[in-house]
Amino acid sequence: MPPMEETPDPLARFRTAAATREAAGLRRVLRARTPDDDGLIDLASNDYLGLARDERLVEAAVAATRDWGTGSTGSRLVTGSTALHERLETRLRAFCGAEGALVFSSGYLANLAAVAALGRGALVISDAGNHASIVDACRLSRSRVVVTPHGDVAAVEKALAGREEEHAIVVTDAVFSVDGDLAPLAGLHAATARRGALLVVDEAHSIGVIGARGQGAAHAAGLAAEPDVVRTITLSKSLGSQGGAVLGAPEVIQTLVDTGRSFIFDTGLAPGSVAAALAAVDILHHQPELPGRVRTRARELAAMARDLGLETGDPAGAVVPIVLGPPEAALRAALVCAEHGVRAGCFRPPSVPVGRSCLRLTARANLSSDDLAVIRGALTAVAEMKVTM
Amino acid sequence: MPPMEETPDPLARFRTAAATREAAGLRRVLRARTPDDDGLIDLASNDYLGLARDERLVEAAVAATRDWGTGSTGSRLVTGSTALHERLETRLRAFCGAEGALVFSSGYLANLAAVAALGRGALVISDAGNHASIVDACRLSRSRVVVTPHGDVAAVEKALAGREEEHAIVVTDAVFSVDGDLAPLAGLHAATARRGALLVVDEAHSIGVIGARGQGAAHAAGLAAEPDVVRTITLSKSLGSQGGAVLGAPEVIQTLVDTGRSFIFDTGLAPGSVAAALAAVDILHHQPELPGRVRTRARELAAMARDLGLETGDPAGAVVPIVLGPPEAALRAALVCAEHGVRAGCFRPPSVPVGRSCLRLTARANLSSDDLAVIRGALTAVAEMKVTM
Repeated sequence: MPPMEETPDPLARFRTAAATREAAGLRRVLRARTPDDDGLIDLASNDYLGLARDERLVEAAVAATRDWGTGSTGSRLVTGSTALHERLETRLRAFCGAEGALVFSSGYLANLAAVAALGRGALVISDAGNHASIVDACRLSRSRVVVTPHGDVAAVEKALAGREEEHAIVVTDAVFSVDGDLAPLAGLHAATARRGALLVVDEAHSIGVIGARGQGAAHAAGLAAEPDVVRTITLSKSLGSQGGAVLGAPEVIQTLVDTGRSFIFDTGLAPGSVAAALAAVDILHHQPELPGRVRTRARELAAMARDLGLETGDPAGAVVPIVLGPPEAALRAALVCAEHGVRAGCFRPPSVPVGRSCLRLTARANLSSDDLAVIRGALTAVAEMKVTM
Repeated sequence: MPPMEETPDPLARFRTAAATREAAGLRRVLRARTPDDDGLIDLASNDYLGLARDERLVEAAVAATRDWGTGSTGSRLVTGSTALHERLETRLRAFCGAEGALVFSSGYLANLAAVAALGRGALVISDAGNHASIVDACRLSRSRVVVTPHGDVAAVEKALAGREEEHAIVVTDAVFSVDGDLAPLAGLHAATARRGALLVVDEAHSIGVIGARGQGAAHAAGLAAEPDVVRTITLSKSLGSQGGAVLGAPEVIQTLVDTGRSFIFDTGLAPGSVAAALAAVDILHHQPELPGRVRTRARELAAMARDLGLETGDPAGAVVPIVLGPPEAALRAALVCAEHGVRAGCFRPPSVPVGRSCLRLTARANLSSDDLAVIRGALTAVAEMKVTM
C-alpha cells in the first residue's frame, strides 16, 4: 500500500473549484420550469417563432410517436433512419435551397461533424465569437486552427492567403448566439471563393428568423446555391423541436455519412422530434410573415432598452443582449425581470467574456402589445437597479 | 486576382476521398426504414428490451408532448429544464443508486461533458476499445491521454502510478459496443481507488441489461455507492428513448452544470423523450426479469453462431458480434440475413478495426422461439456464404 498522501480524495479538486466559482458569482443552479411558470412572459427561450407548443407541431409529434415509437433505436447508419428522417431531409433541402441535408440528434453534434470532418487535414479559420460547439469542433478536427477577430473579413483573407495547408475551411455563426449580430457572409464568401476554401455557416439563430421566409442568412445573402457553402442548423430553436442538420453539396453529405464521428456513433433523432421539425418547416412555408415579425419585435425590444439607457446592440435576428458587466448584476437583473413578470436569460462566463455578463432577451413572433407593456415595466426596473448599484 | 491554380475546387478532395472509400468497400448508404420493414426480425437496433414501441412509453411521450410542447426551448440552464427533467433525474438516481444525475440530449454529449470537464487538468487514461464519443471527449479534455490496451488493468495501474499529473481519471465502456465484452470494473476501481483517481464508466450498453434489475455493470460490481465512480448512460438503447445522463457525486454534477460545455451550450432533451425514458425506468422497476431475458437471448444467439462455425465472443450483455474480416464479407452477410428475414447490423472501419468487419447482432428481451428459428436459418446461410467466399 502506498502512504496516505498518495491517495487524495479525487473529488476534493472539484469542491475547491466550485468554491472559487461561487466566490466569482459563477455557480449555476438548475431551475426546473413548472406548469405555473407560464405566468411569466418568455424572453429567455430560443423558441423564436413560438412553435414549441403549437398544436400542429404537437399533433405531428404525437402521430409520429404512435407510428414509429419513442426512439429511433440506433445509429442513422443502422436502424436509426426512418422514412420520416428522409422526408425531413428532403423538406429541408427544398426549403433552404440546398442540394443535400443530413439530420442529427442535436445542433451541437451537427457542428462537431461538419467542422471536424470537413476541416480534417485543412487549415480551420474560426471567428472569435463562435459558439462553443464550433470551438469544440475545431479542436476535434485535429487541424491547425486560426481564430480571427470577431467579424473581421480582412483577418480571414490574410489567414487564407498566408496558409501552408493546401485546403482550408472558414467557420462562422451567421447570427451570434449572445451578441445577436450578423456575420459578414458576403465578404467571407468572396474571400473563401477566391482562395478555394469552404465556408461553413452555423444558422442556429438565423434559420426561421433571417430572410424573406426564414431560410437563413446564407440564403438571404444569395449563397444558398453555392457548392462551397455548408450550413448547419438547429431544429430546436425557431423550429420548436430538437436536433440539428447539415445542409450542403452531395460531396459534403457523403463525407459526413462516411466519416462524421458524431453522426455515425450517435443514435438517430427520435421520430416525434423529426415530425415536429417537419411541421415547423411547413408552417414557415405557409406563414412567411413569421420571420419578419420576430425581427420587428427584436428591434422594438432593443429600442426600448436603449430608450431606458441600457447597453444593447442592433439585433440582426431575435437575440437582444443587455450588457450589465459583472455576473452579480446580470443575476440580479434576471431576478428583477422575474419579479416584473418576465423570464430573461442570464449569461455569465464562460458563456460570455469576463466583464460582459448580460441579460439575453429573445424576441418571439407571438409577443403581444400587452406583453411589450409588461416588458417595458421590467426593463425600467432593470435600468433603475443599474443606476443604484 | 491570384492565378487559376490557387483556386482549386474545394469539393474535389472530398470526391477523391469518397472514391478511395468506395474502392475499399467503405462507402455508406443511408437506408430509411419504412413501415413495411417490420417484416424483418430486428437484430440490428439497440432497442434491447423492445421498449421503443411499447405502448406505455408511447403514451407517456404523447402526454408529455401535449403538456410541455415538442421542444425544451433552450439550454438546461435557461429554459430547457422542466419538472419532467427533474423527475427523470430523481428517478435515475434512485434506480441506479447514485447521489446525483444529470440528463443530456444525447449519450454522446453526456460523455463529452463527463470526460472533458472531469478530465481537465488531469491525466486521462482510456481503454483502446472505448467508443468514439469517449475518444472525442478525451481530445476535448485537452489533457495528456494515455490509451491502454483493451481490458488491461495492469497497464492502467502502471499509467496511474507513473503519472506526473496530480490528478487522473480512468474511462472505460462497461460493455463494449461492438465486441460486447465486459470491462474489468472491480480491478479498475481497485486501481483508481488506490491511486486517488476517478473512474468513469460508460454504461450505454449495460444499463437495462446488466445486473439484477438492469442497474448496470458498475452497480452489479458493487460500485454504485462509490463517490469516485462516475457513470454515463444512454436513454436511447435499452430505455427506448433518446438522450443520455451522467450519474455521480454532487461535486461531479455541479462541475458539469457549471463547466460542462456540451451541457451548457446544448438544448435540453425534448419533453416527450424525457417522459419515455421515465416510463422505461418504471417498467424496469416492475418487470425486473427483462434484463435477464435479454442476456439469455444473447447467449443463445452466440451459441447458435458458434455451432455454425462462425467467429463470435462470449456476450456479457445484448451485443453478439460475428466477425467476418473484410468489409465486403460483412456487407454480403448482412444482405444474406435480410434475404432470410433478419435485419443485422453491418460494422466496418472506422466503427471496427481494419480486418474486423462484422455482423453485429443484438439480442432483444422479446425475441420469440419462432424468431430464433428464423435467425438460425439466416445464420446458417451466412456460415455457408463464408465457406464459399
